[in-house]
Amino acid sequence: MQIEVVTIGDELLLGFTVDTNAAHLARAPAARGVAIVRRSTCGDDASEIAAAVREALDRTGAVITTGGLGPTADDMTKEAIAALFGRGMRLDEAIVESLRARWLKRGWGGELPKSNLQQAMIPEGCEILVNNHGSAPGIWLEDARGRWVAMLPGVPREMRGMLADALMPRIEARLAAATSAPTVIRSRTLRTTGIAESALADKLGELAKAPFGLSLAYLPQTSGVDLRLTSRGRTAAEADALLARGATALRERIGPVVYGEGVDDLAAVVLQTMRERHLTLALAESCTGGLLGARLTAIPGSSDVLLGGVVAYANAVKQSQLGVREATLSAHGAVSEETAREMALGARERLGASVAIAVTGVAGPGGGTPEKPVGHVCFAVAIGDDAQTFTANLIGDRAEIRERAAQTALNALRRALAT
Amino acid sequence: MQIEVVTIGDELLLGFTVDTNAAHLARAPAARGVAIVRRSTCGDDASEIAAAVREALDRTGAVITTGGLGPTADDMTKEAIAALFGRGMRLDEAIVESLRARWLKRGWGGELPKSNLQQAMIPEGCEILVNNHGSAPGIWLEDARGRWVAMLPGVPREMRGMLADALMPRIEARLAAATSAPTVIRSRTLRTTGIAESALADKLGELAKAPFGLSLAYLPQTSGVDLRLTSRGRTAAEADALLARGATALRERIGPVVYGEGVDDLAAVVLQTMRERHLTLALAESCTGGLLGARLTAIPGSSDVLLGGVVAYANAVKQSQLGVREATLSAHGAVSEETAREMALGARERLGASVAIAVTGVAGPGGGTPEKPVGHVCFAVAIGDDAQTFTANLIGDRAEIRERAAQTALNALRRALAT
Repeated sequence: MQIEVVTIGDELLLGFTVDTNAAHLARAPAARGVAIVRRSTCGDDASEIAAAVREALDRTGAVITTGGLGPTADDMTKEAIAALFGRGMRLDEAIVESLRARWLKRGWGGELPKSNLQQAMIPEGCEILVNNHGSAPGIWLEDARGRWVAMLPGVPREMRGMLADALMPRIEARLAAATSAPTVIRSRTLRTTGIAESALADKLGELAKAPFGLSLAYLPQTSGVDLRLTSRGRTAAEADALLARGATALRERIGPVVYGEGVDDLAAVVLQTMRERHLTLALAESCTGGLLGARLTAIPGSSDVLLGGVVAYANAVKQSQLGVREATLSAHGAVSEETAREMALGARERLGASVAIAVTGVAGPGGGTPEKPVGHVCFAVAIGDDAQTFTANLIGDRAEIRERAAQTALNALRRALAT
Repeated sequence: MQIEVVTIGDELLLGFTVDTNAAHLARAPAARGVAIVRRSTCGDDASEIAAAVREALDRTGAVITTGGLGPTADDMTKEAIAALFGRGMRLDEAIVESLRARWLKRGWGGELPKSNLQQAMIPEGCEILVNNHGSAPGIWLEDARGRWVAMLPGVPREMRGMLADALMPRIEARLAAATSAPTVIRSRTLRTTGIAESALADKLGELAKAPFGLSLAYLPQTSGVDLRLTSRGRTAAEADALLARGATALRERIGPVVYGEGVDDLAAVVLQTMRERHLTLALAESCTGGLLGARLTAIPGSSDVLLGGVVAYANAVKQSQLGVREATLSAHGAVSEETAREMALGARERLGASVAIAVTGVAGPGGGTPEKPVGHVCFAVAIGDDAQTFTANLIGDRAEIRERAAQTALNALRRALAT
């Protein structure tokens, strides 16, 4: 079985909303041997929706759509696809009731807004995919030839719940009913940071292309380059054994640039190492302005390691809240390894942590000088009374430089903990 | 002229990388009356790439691709599309030289990695789209019927530079050569926060559908609901006048829930208001853990308003760095309006700011109680010696609750400044 995904919404086509559903939608079916072979995005236009879904159906006979199930006039997925299947629309009283109950429970007051009733209009002859996390029901439509379209909401939490609760069981039932065994697709991803994609490929040498008949993909991101090994068409056990051999070979070749696997977050990796050693962490941030704290506190349970931090944007705050000396600032400037060192030592001591990291740099677009251009960022890692410092020249725009600075700080901490 | 976009890469199809190019790729052509009518995503597979581009060419004759121009074995866009056009590949010496010069300039040491040479392989008979921001040159291929494919890199900064420097001039030249005047598409977006999509639609009443013949789209995001008015097929002056009437009508109806227009960021709106009044800001963050600071410092120039903040994750840090009293914590708990008030007042005083905001709440997934469930977040806004406090019950997972908490804090500050 192959599936195509059609995502619907002007906001997606125009990119005002980032499509955060894609990863999740691809992973669950892939684990059952079902590949998402193409994703198309079209605007809130009934004829565009119908055309995109018809073409996808012609290619694979199995289509998942997301979006366009909401309560407003620009939500037209259900009608457009119902028309494609030659079906009319009807108001479903059970859905009206559940929408009403939901509205009362949220405690927003007043009657259910009339706009919500649109969510109770469903195609004739469809089946409902239950939504345990929101108001829009999902829809399953199937024609006489067994070709199907599953319409899921665009809101990520609702989409994920419906996929797990209602759609995956249907897909699995189809797979079980099919005579041929599904092709198993399994993959394993090594995450690296602090090394360029081409340098990584050179370092891998003959491993750079498909070791052991696996395929190898390079996935460069602001946070680093992921290496994904994929196995197709083997049994699960055989695939897993080959992936393990491949991952071991890659790790032997590129060693410490690998910080984790799969969806491991460098922040989570660092927190786990510190947790095991009963270490606590304090932060001192200038150019990242809280981003490092945000990365770490995004991880549930981070509070048993991270005590807190100081966002010291103004020099006066670096002095008053972290104890950076006036003399250091005037001799070396706010962006210097000397200032970073005092920031880290000050945060460690004042917050009573065993370890502290500090970041100060020029994120741009303004503020660069010939000696300290945009992207010039100084770091310090304080463990005990000692602080190691270094400087990196990071590339990209303001957002990328800040993200890279946070990642570089976390990676420096990871490597300091490893020694 | 209509254009389709084909984005290439397993990482995009699987959603491991977020497609941040879409908005930019749609906006520049739209401003010239050229619509991106569909976007397709396919994996790093030569036959899938060829199929997606061929189908897009059949529909519109004008295709922009992004991705697959890199230096590694999984980058196969150029060869796949060259084959579709019946062209071979050749090594371009000028590109080799520029890659070599670029490598030396980056100061990474050693020779140009051999993998980079793949970037100098180009289709026979193509034209080069210059890349002023990276190593991969772009490619323009055109057939005898005038159908074209422009291949841009996937890295956002490089894509944007190439679009502006090399591709838009070509598209504009085509438009100028065409006999018929292009259809002008113009839009204007009002940004709202703190109100549900359906409640907004009800509040808009008869304005909810297409006022003055404009189309109105609702774009719900974690940060709030955007309202986009779009005008098609009119002259630019006529469209702008109608959009101005529409925006005024909407603002009159929904008033203070609108915090800005277009790509206005609430953080930037708040910073600008404070800048005009010569106010300074300090932050006290618990459950957002630095996210509020990261939002504000993402804005260039934020340093003239934001002095800094304290990420007070541990209660000990709330006491030592913000002066929250032991008695307050034991009587009301860390998640309480009383604690939020002391956090804000402490941050304001200790950092010497005129205004401070504080956030403390239960981000989940753990830590909820019947009285204070996951999503229960307390806020304080301190202006002068006075602090206003309130509590919100935010929905979503940990990431959404934290994002909504940061947005809610900024919106509370905006509304406090407006009174």
